[in-house]
Amino acid sequence: MAENDAFTDFAEKFRPHIDAALEAYMRSFGDSCPSALQEAMRYSLLAPGKRIRPLLAMAAAEACGGSAMQALPAACAVEMVHAYSLIHDDLPCMDDDAMRRGRPSCHIAFGEAEALLAGDALLALAFDVLAKDVQPADSATACIRTLATASGPTGMVGGQSDDLRGVKGGSGTEYLESIDRRKTGALLEAALLCGGIIAAGTSEQLAALEQYGWRIGLAFQIRDDLLDTQSTPETLGKATGKDAALSKLTYPSLLGEQAGAKRMHDLVHEASDAIALFRDSANPLRALAKFTVERQS
Amino acid sequence: MAENDAFTDFAEKFRPHIDAALEAYMRSFGDSCPSALQEAMRYSLLAPGKRIRPLLAMAAAEACGGSAMQALPAACAVEMVHAYSLIHDDLPCMDDDAMRRGRPSCHIAFGEAEALLAGDALLALAFDVLAKDVQPADSATACIRTLATASGPTGMVGGQSDDLRGVKGGSGTEYLESIDRRKTGALLEAALLCGGIIAAGTSEQLAALEQYGWRIGLAFQIRDDLLDTQSTPETLGKATGKDAALSKLTYPSLLGEQAGAKRMHDLVHEASDAIALFRDSANPLRALAKFTVERQS
Repeated sequence: MAENDAFTDFAEKFRPHIDAALEAYMRSFGDSCPSALQEAMRYSLLAPGKRIRPLLAMAAAEACGGSAMQALPAACAVEMVHAYSLIHDDLPCMDDDAMRRGRPSCHIAFGEAEALLAGDALLALAFDVLAKDVQPADSATACIRTLATASGPTGMVGGQSDDLRGVKGGSGTEYLESIDRRKTGALLEAALLCGGIIAAGTSEQLAALEQYGWRIGLAFQIRDDLLDTQSTPETLGKATGKDAALSKLTYPSLLGEQAGAKRMHDLVHEASDAIALFRDSANPLRALAKFTVERQS
Repeated sequence: MAENDAFTDFAEKFRPHIDAALEAYMRSFGDSCPSALQEAMRYSLLAPGKRIRPLLAMAAAEACGGSAMQALPAACAVEMVHAYSLIHDDLPCMDDDAMRRGRPSCHIAFGEAEALLAGDALLALAFDVLAKDVQPADSATACIRTLATASGPTGMVGGQSDDLRGVKGGSGTEYLESIDRRKTGALLEAALLCGGIIAAGTSEQLAALEQYGWRIGLAFQIRDDLLDTQSTPETLGKATGKDAALSKLTYPSLLGEQAGAKRMHDLVHEASDAIALFRDSANPLRALAKFTVERQS
């Protein structure tokens, strides 16, 4: 079976479980969460999406010899953090994006204040889910540390902060990679590590997932940058050409499109090499690496 | 010794430890956190403050027969959540407050985007601290659940969301109390419970702390409402008279100042009754209840 099919099969098998679990978490509040807040959270979290991060968590668990379903709560927690980050990124004081996933952004649909709160709520909820639904407690705290570090001041939020300063903050591919490793890579890496932790992966296995993770994350970001340059808003589901307008530091702007694409392909090869120690159980991860560079949205 | 002194003594003894620990957490990033983000976080977290929530956590630990210092990491985590909530509350899309603790609000000093991120970072960091520095792992996950629930969609953020709708959302003291229990009470209650959990409090002790906590929280909020009506910006360190301008639902607006003050005093008496099962070890909590209604800022 071709590796690419391994990812498609894996995604088709588990995406419905992810969507159902996310839906169940959103339903679990009942009347104890204000309906406006609940709608804003649902709108962003349950929006049709690729669910790459939850799938990574589940695929990592399988690669380490565990079951994918064991990692479902952590997979949902990571998606909550992802949804929160998109809501806050789209706010007027940040990237000021009116479209996301082909629909009005959360703050366009629900107002800025409710969107801000929906993001805040999803971030808090992610840690609640990990503390409540990951067993044993040692695994839960390891996942929480992993996700909090990835999303905190030295991770995603730190990357966003440096990114705010655009070309004024620094230059060169090294600086750009340091931003992207935190802005995008850290959360993908955390997804993989949570899956590995839950499946009781060895330190060698976790190290391999980490090596794979940041490279996939970086390749993912380069692909995003290239799509921003090359796509239309219709195919991408959000505004395009914004990076250039905001004079953001990107691979296409720094290296040119061709060299950017080469760096992306190199990273994906290195990512595949990093998980050579896993056998067939990591085929979905191998296929996902390829998907990263081939995706059109 | 008068009970009031018991709180003053407790606060004077432990506030320096809290400030030092918060400072140490802020220093721990080194170069791995962008300096602009780090400054915005420090500015809000280390601003001179009463540190009521961390002191509650530490006093609760002592009440349950543990040591106050044992609860220091959790105390810091609660203060991080408090600082995050103040930053986000002050943003233009929320309460649009330009002053906080007698100084320009975080977004005035650092810009909206950096303030948003500083809040996000402090929230993530709080859970990192609990997962890393609370032992054993069972206590850590219990604290994380407590704090995440208190700050999440059914807690503080939910209360904020209902509060956004002001008088349009509902009316009556029951509705107002439900908002305030979530907006202010939930975090005070969580601080107490974390302290109790870390000191391995019995379920009876934890229930008592909970009963005390929400009442103190509500009394605290009524005092805030009264101060907003009765104080000047100089004594309070932030704008006053804003609640009326925003037609927010408050105790003074709903009951009048006198009945509001009576409800506050009743709550404080009930709160003291709720912790009758503790002996002298709870004297700081008893004194703190009194301080709640007497404070001038």
